[in-house]
Amino acid sequence: MDYKVADLSLADYGRKELSLAEHEMPGLMEMRARYGDSKPLAGARIAGSLHMTIQTGVLIETLVALGADVRWATCNIFSTQDHAAAAVVVGPPSSGGSVDNPQGTPVFAWKGETLGEYWDEAEKVFDFKDEAGNLIGPNMLLDDGGDITMLLHKGVEFEKAGAVPGQDSTDNEEYKEVLRVLARSLENNPTHWTNIANSILGVTEETTTGVLRLYDRFKEGSLLFPAINVNDSVTKSKFDNKYGCRHSLIDGINRGTDVMIGGKVAVVCGYGDVGKGSAESLRGQGARVIITEIDPICALQAAMDGYEVKRLESVVETADIFITTTGNFNIIGVEHFKKMKHQAIVGNIGHFDNEIDMAGLAKIPGIVKDEIKPQVHQWIFEDGKKIIVLSEGRLLNLGNATGHPSFVMSNSFTNQVLAQVELYTKTDEYPVGVYVLPKHLDEEVARLHLDALGVELTELTQEQADYLGVPVEGPYKSDHYRY
Amino acid sequence: MDYKVADLSLADYGRKELSLAEHEMPGLMEMRARYGDSKPLAGARIAGSLHMTIQTGVLIETLVALGADVRWATCNIFSTQDHAAAAVVVGPPSSGGSVDNPQGTPVFAWKGETLGEYWDEAEKVFDFKDEAGNLIGPNMLLDDGGDITMLLHKGVEFEKAGAVPGQDSTDNEEYKEVLRVLARSLENNPTHWTNIANSILGVTEETTTGVLRLYDRFKEGSLLFPAINVNDSVTKSKFDNKYGCRHSLIDGINRGTDVMIGGKVAVVCGYGDVGKGSAESLRGQGARVIITEIDPICALQAAMDGYEVKRLESVVETADIFITTTGNFNIIGVEHFKKMKHQAIVGNIGHFDNEIDMAGLAKIPGIVKDEIKPQVHQWIFEDGKKIIVLSEGRLLNLGNATGHPSFVMSNSFTNQVLAQVELYTKTDEYPVGVYVLPKHLDEEVARLHLDALGVELTELTQEQADYLGVPVEGPYKSDHYRY
Amino acid sequence: MDYKVADLSLADYGRKELSLAEHEMPGLMEMRARYGDSKPLAGARIAGSLHMTIQTGVLIETLVALGADVRWATCNIFSTQDHAAAAVVVGPPSSGGSVDNPQGTPVFAWKGETLGEYWDEAEKVFDFKDEAGNLIGPNMLLDDGGDITMLLHKGVEFEKAGAVPGQDSTDNEEYKEVLRVLARSLENNPTHWTNIANSILGVTEETTTGVLRLYDRFKEGSLLFPAINVNDSVTKSKFDNKYGCRHSLIDGINRGTDVMIGGKVAVVCGYGDVGKGSAESLRGQGARVIITEIDPICALQAAMDGYEVKRLESVVETADIFITTTGNFNIIGVEHFKKMKHQAIVGNIGHFDNEIDMAGLAKIPGIVKDEIKPQVHQWIFEDGKKIIVLSEGRLLNLGNATGHPSFVMSNSFTNQVLAQVELYTKTDEYPVGVYVLPKHLDEEVARLHLDALGVELTELTQEQADYLGVPVEGPYKSDHYRY
Amino acid sequence: MDYKVADLSLADYGRKELSLAEHEMPGLMEMRARYGDSKPLAGARIAGSLHMTIQTGVLIETLVALGADVRWATCNIFSTQDHAAAAVVVGPPSSGGSVDNPQGTPVFAWKGETLGEYWDEAEKVFDFKDEAGNLIGPNMLLDDGGDITMLLHKGVEFEKAGAVPGQDSTDNEEYKEVLRVLARSLENNPTHWTNIANSILGVTEETTTGVLRLYDRFKEGSLLFPAINVNDSVTKSKFDNKYGCRHSLIDGINRGTDVMIGGKVAVVCGYGDVGKGSAESLRGQGARVIITEIDPICALQAAMDGYEVKRLESVVETADIFITTTGNFNIIGVEHFKKMKHQAIVGNIGHFDNEIDMAGLAKIPGIVKDEIKPQVHQWIFEDGKKIIVLSEGRLLNLGNATGHPSFVMSNSFTNQVLAQVELYTKTDEYPVGVYVLPKHLDEEVARLHLDALGVELTELTQEQADYLGVPVEGPYKSDHYRY
Repeated sequence: MDYKVADLSLADYGRKELSLAEHEMPGLMEMRARYGDSKPLAGARIAGSLHMTIQTGVLIETLVALGADVRWATCNIFSTQDHAAAAVVVGPPSSGGSVDNPQGTPVFAWKGETLGEYWDEAEKVFDFKDEAGNLIGPNMLLDDGGDITMLLHKGVEFEKAGAVPGQDSTDNEEYKEVLRVLARSLENNPTHWTNIANSILGVTEETTTGVLRLYDRFKEGSLLFPAINVNDSVTKSKFDNKYGCRHSLIDGINRGTDVMIGGKVAVVCGYGDVGKGSAESLRGQGARVIITEIDPICALQAAMDGYEVKRLESVVETADIFITTTGNFNIIGVEHFKKMKHQAIVGNIGHFDNEIDMAGLAKIPGIVKDEIKPQVHQWIFEDGKKIIVLSEGRLLNLGNATGHPSFVMSNSFTNQVLAQVELYTKTDEYPVGVYVLPKHLDEEVARLHLDALGVELTELTQEQADYLGVPVEGPYKSDHYRY
Repeated sequence: MDYKVADLSLADYGRKELSLAEHEMPGLMEMRARYGDSKPLAGARIAGSLHMTIQTGVLIETLVALGADVRWATCNIFSTQDHAAAAVVVGPPSSGGSVDNPQGTPVFAWKGETLGEYWDEAEKVFDFKDEAGNLIGPNMLLDDGGDITMLLHKGVEFEKAGAVPGQDSTDNEEYKEVLRVLARSLENNPTHWTNIANSILGVTEETTTGVLRLYDRFKEGSLLFPAINVNDSVTKSKFDNKYGCRHSLIDGINRGTDVMIGGKVAVVCGYGDVGKGSAESLRGQGARVIITEIDPICALQAAMDGYEVKRLESVVETADIFITTTGNFNIIGVEHFKKMKHQAIVGNIGHFDNEIDMAGLAKIPGIVKDEIKPQVHQWIFEDGKKIIVLSEGRLLNLGNATGHPSFVMSNSFTNQVLAQVELYTKTDEYPVGVYVLPKHLDEEVARLHLDALGVELTELTQEQADYLGVPVEGPYKSDHYRY
Repeated sequence: MDYKVADLSLADYGRKELSLAEHEMPGLMEMRARYGDSKPLAGARIAGSLHMTIQTGVLIETLVALGADVRWATCNIFSTQDHAAAAVVVGPPSSGGSVDNPQGTPVFAWKGETLGEYWDEAEKVFDFKDEAGNLIGPNMLLDDGGDITMLLHKGVEFEKAGAVPGQDSTDNEEYKEVLRVLARSLENNPTHWTNIANSILGVTEETTTGVLRLYDRFKEGSLLFPAINVNDSVTKSKFDNKYGCRHSLIDGINRGTDVMIGGKVAVVCGYGDVGKGSAESLRGQGARVIITEIDPICALQAAMDGYEVKRLESVVETADIFITTTGNFNIIGVEHFKKMKHQAIVGNIGHFDNEIDMAGLAKIPGIVKDEIKPQVHQWIFEDGKKIIVLSEGRLLNLGNATGHPSFVMSNSFTNQVLAQVELYTKTDEYPVGVYVLPKHLDEEVARLHLDALGVELTELTQEQADYLGVPVEGPYKSDHYRY
Repeated sequence: MDYKVADLSLADYGRKELSLAEHEMPGLMEMRARYGDSKPLAGARIAGSLHMTIQTGVLIETLVALGADVRWATCNIFSTQDHAAAAVVVGPPSSGGSVDNPQGTPVFAWKGETLGEYWDEAEKVFDFKDEAGNLIGPNMLLDDGGDITMLLHKGVEFEKAGAVPGQDSTDNEEYKEVLRVLARSLENNPTHWTNIANSILGVTEETTTGVLRLYDRFKEGSLLFPAINVNDSVTKSKFDNKYGCRHSLIDGINRGTDVMIGGKVAVVCGYGDVGKGSAESLRGQGARVIITEIDPICALQAAMDGYEVKRLESVVETADIFITTTGNFNIIGVEHFKKMKHQAIVGNIGHFDNEIDMAGLAKIPGIVKDEIKPQVHQWIFEDGKKIIVLSEGRLLNLGNATGHPSFVMSNSFTNQVLAQVELYTKTDEYPVGVYVLPKHLDEEVARLHLDALGVELTELTQEQADYLGVPVEGPYKSDHYRY
């Protein structure tokens, strides 16, 4: 078995954590219980790219329990939990695997990869082979942010063109690595990616960002296979984004800084689902939260929820904590850094690290970057003022804490499993396009998580269902219902 | 001028309240400022049916300021504020009207109408006449719950059939009155409603219930003119339903009972927008709130928001306060009443009074209904146990308090004004069908309410807008975004 | 029976409300159950002065059930609930009283007394007579704010001096009335008050203000009899002041103005118990609350609770609602009024109406006071700006709503009953001085209110009690414990 | 310089953290600014025993900046932050110390001491020597929990008796170590402790537990010197206990378990200050919190704050998280463990580890204790059920997280500094006894923390101060005011 992880000896600790997490992921465990025998994913070869955490480990092993072959990389160079990666490679007790004889799933991920390593490992998730050792590639993708989907599409594009652009065609350091990997592959096999693409039945995508890329591709006609947008399942966007961040935002701040949040002024940039969860997180600790927003509807929601809503410029000199949640770029820039108070804390829980202008920060004359501990830096200005930046501007809940907790990820990941099964088993129903899961599956995901919380669900009588014009067993709401 | 109100001498007090409310309704006042000169509703004859409150008074006078002729009835026999009705009839200072010489808008509404009176007055809002006194009818409808829309459609239907069914064809006391009114009209003029219907350019509908009726009609092909669904504007459903109820639920309970809410156990049936606002309302007063739900997604939201979620049967014996918010029927029935504690409080803030089985309650052997004060009754069981029922099971925030406050209604009603202007001025763009307002108007409604709350809205740079793929000035979100 | 109320025919409605309130006052009802037979207050003649509300009605009838004779006046010219006064005069069903033949307790109170009437009625609560009709006066006082205690002490003082100062010796309009009443009594009977004072066994006082007066008298040596400070029982100050105001503040604002509180900026002046409850009340409705404080400890508490803490000057121009809770005077003055926004709302829930400089407001050149409805006035400045003032600066929860709800008053009033029993039955243990109730009685008051809320109290094992060094049955805390 | 720490090379990291913490401890930094020149502690030799964390480092260096000589041990075998201990030994930059040449304060503490080591190191804080190297001992104690105070008192007692009881006179493992240490010292020098005790001017004690021991000693007449009870300063008990735990409880649970708190049922045993902060902490994360209480007043507070209040027996089978906050013992026992759900989480943030019956747990037949990671164990029952126990029942916020954050500890520790100065400089004013700091110092501590939070404090006018009968500059409240 090929794999590449930091330290396989961490597997024992990882297995204990996986065991604990399974109890907190009732949706995934119910998937195993329902489909463990029928194995609807038998024959599926899933190439996955998603933060290699304990929760992802439970997802991977659920996919395997449903019959799939899986290969996995991370979608983020810092977020891997090395004990999780090791444990997945070793495999569950039922696999008979051990540190000396791993029998689990091939994983290619460790905490702190370089960008070059990242793209080298991303390429490897496509290396499924048949029993004879011939490369056959995956037939399903599971993606977070769209990196492996992009790699495959770019590979096909360059093979069609017969050439990969030179690395000096771009200023983007990361894209140089993509070009390097694809140039190497073109040299080895000029139809490598095209062959793979022909086998792919579909991709299931986890995030807003990846979904936007998919819609763009679909609009321009370049999407090669159907996609399910998992991000916009209610049980993903309204739970993972909101309640996950409510949990993990303060967890990241606490582990990173140990600073008291109570009594402080915290600015949350953006009041979408992530912003709503973040604001609640900070308020729950006694911070006074100020919101910035561009959308008047979200701004009015923030005001009605009792938050002050200001432009960043108006409060940058007095606030103590700054958190970006926007999915946009250049939210906090050099001019803001210059005006912040000594020991202001800056972090991002939105998506990309460009929400905060880290490059601009580094270029401020005389500034010194000093590591306090991993993922926590003080940037010391010439006059001695320090700004604390978490996770170098990347997602602080992953870099400074352990990401979202298992229970909320169980919602997102049960959507992933259902989406994989849907695309893999109902190929004919999904021509090339971007889909969301049907409402009844979204409701089913929620239903699977109620018992664990002691929730009693009320059942409609037939008369009540008729009165509302819905089936007794749901779905209950129109597709545009906002929850 | 024809009109029918309780007491015109209440107009002075009503005018003071209208003046105060105008300040709290910045969206409507901005409509007047923007369109007061161009008068986009010039020529519009609007028949309106909506709770005749102070806030509705500001709406009516805004429609008039935009050029419309208006006639108004209430949509609920108990919700009229008599001073508001009187003030609207007298008219604003600019009209030169006085109690002795009213110059305002014809209103046909008073608190405590009988069902017969209700439908007689509903008919009158159609009686627009030209200068010669000939009946010309309205060309626009503004409806809440769909009663006048139904009256018109039924009128047309019976005229086509050439006959109105007898009153004994139905057990429904209210529908008997509808048949009575339509039979009378058919006798007077067999093409009365058909003539009117031919002039109608469209209807704007305020509520979930009314909207459902419209969709049903459209599906079955019987809808006679286009409709705008105001209810599903974000700035209506997520503000009026949620934040309006957060305000008016405890206001109604307090005025009705003076009972301490803090420390009590309150059951909120339903966790949609109304339920969410209601739960927050009670929790803000220190109650321990328990939710009942049929939809697993909403149930999971409730649990994640920290509420206990139970079936009503499990908690009916221990809770102190019961509030229905479902839009469904028979939520609280006789078996529940029998198990409730002495002096349990029961009220409805959902939609119809059938959420609570009032008829069943009245039939419990030996039970006595005793009025404590208007809209507050104790139902005394044979064994002496008392249950307090608010507003006879009708909307308690209207019956026991004064409904939603002006600011939140300004959001709903600015949607109404924009929808009236849209349908009246862009007739060609709206063939028969049911529409929601376009996103940019929804955002505009929110925008008009920010200044009053001191909100500073952030503006996208062109680069950021391009990054997101949205215009700098919005709209910012896809139609299915959930807020 | 002598009495003076607004309208005895309101008694039926009052009796219903009394019956409902009894259920919400489990402490008082338990007093009746425990002591109704032994009648520890037999022989007590209690002169009472406290807001004549429904809750006070339950208190009065509890004192009677314990054997006392009672006569009652209000302590506030606006707070009387006329139906409560009527019901108490008629008496409970067990008294056999009716509107035509009242058999209850003599009450001298109606809503809207003049200051002259107020002091005339206050005098009457001392007019206990024996069966022969001879004046014998009370032997116990129950006071709120200290007015009847002051009347008696001043009466004694002037009788000793042999003369009452002329009314022109003071500028204080109210004190002129006190002098008028005492001059009249001195003329009628030069030892009237001295005789009464000799019979008094003690007074129980409800409020901070009254308690301060008692401590001052005790320090200067002029206190004539022992006093129990009910205000500083934990079950009074931490419940009535905090949770009572959490309930009644927004109730008063809502009934007075119907203005949406959500999204507004509300300034709460003071963060003592009343301020804490007020801030929570407004925050629970979605307001953004700003605190003003003089005490650095309370200010730090407010900050740690997530509130912005500012000087009034810094926020007076931008806030929407201003509430005083301080017990101090001149908190909001003319300079503040001048800077407030149009339609700012101003109210007081602290103690005296001098927290707001109403006299100064009235003297602003060109200002006009316009009544919107009783207890709600708009003060119109020359430039048209309006300020809404609630209850003329007096307690808005009493003037615009119905005061604290029954359940929280049950705590305060059970303390009153226990204090009356304590002073009356253990006269020897209380030499002249000011006392708080012993801790075990304070805990007992709390204990009596737990069942109604479904609270299960844990019991210490003997080993645990020994470990803590407390009795199993309490008291559990030292006297200085802060809760 | 003598010292004993885990690893001096951690000092650099520790110095960075100390520098960050100084900014968050404005009270201590103001002590340095005010008294750094006058050095009121010059000549003081302070023996300290308190958790050796970063915050304590700032305290120690503040005492030194005020002129004191200091020696320090921890009061808890698990709570030492090794980088903090190292940094304090090396000393601040101004000391010129380095890892190779430490110039700071002698510290005797490392994470994970044995009980034997703990008492050996505790003894060493008494080893002050004069320049000639003769033992002179401390003249001040600063204690947390009373261990070094106890050691000294026991030492004196046994020296007076001329003998130390044998270790087999007790079953208590820890007390055996105390006896061992004292026996050794008696052998070396039969007047060692008596000599030291004669020099001691006083002790300042941090905790409830230590304070109880002091009061007990004072009552029985065995207290050897005056003591200041720092615990009962308002700025300690109402801030450290409440807001500190609000921060550090969820921090400990998160770091220990990564379990989602939102949606879970959490039982908080006790609703004192620690319980209040703990409940708020969990509720802020979306947990449904249930309280257990023995004191009816605290129980009623919990109910009024919207919490369910139950006996542990009633909810032990359904809750997910159990937190003890009582200061009592045997709160969670074997019978409870047996009924808990699989993967229930159990932790203590009260005081001693005996709040949870860890000994009983270990004795359950067939149970296996399995370490997941340091300070996190799963106890596996015979049937496979696992219970997660944090920090082996010791304080989880210290064992699983980093204790209270700097800002709140700045309040507690500024009280400590003021208390040390008070006792050391005003020896005559404090005869043997137990004192709290005077109110004006308590208010001063709060005042020193307002600027950092942007709080504007309002100043009384002279007229207002006179009206209230307080000085303009405070103190503002009576000693029994409850905040």
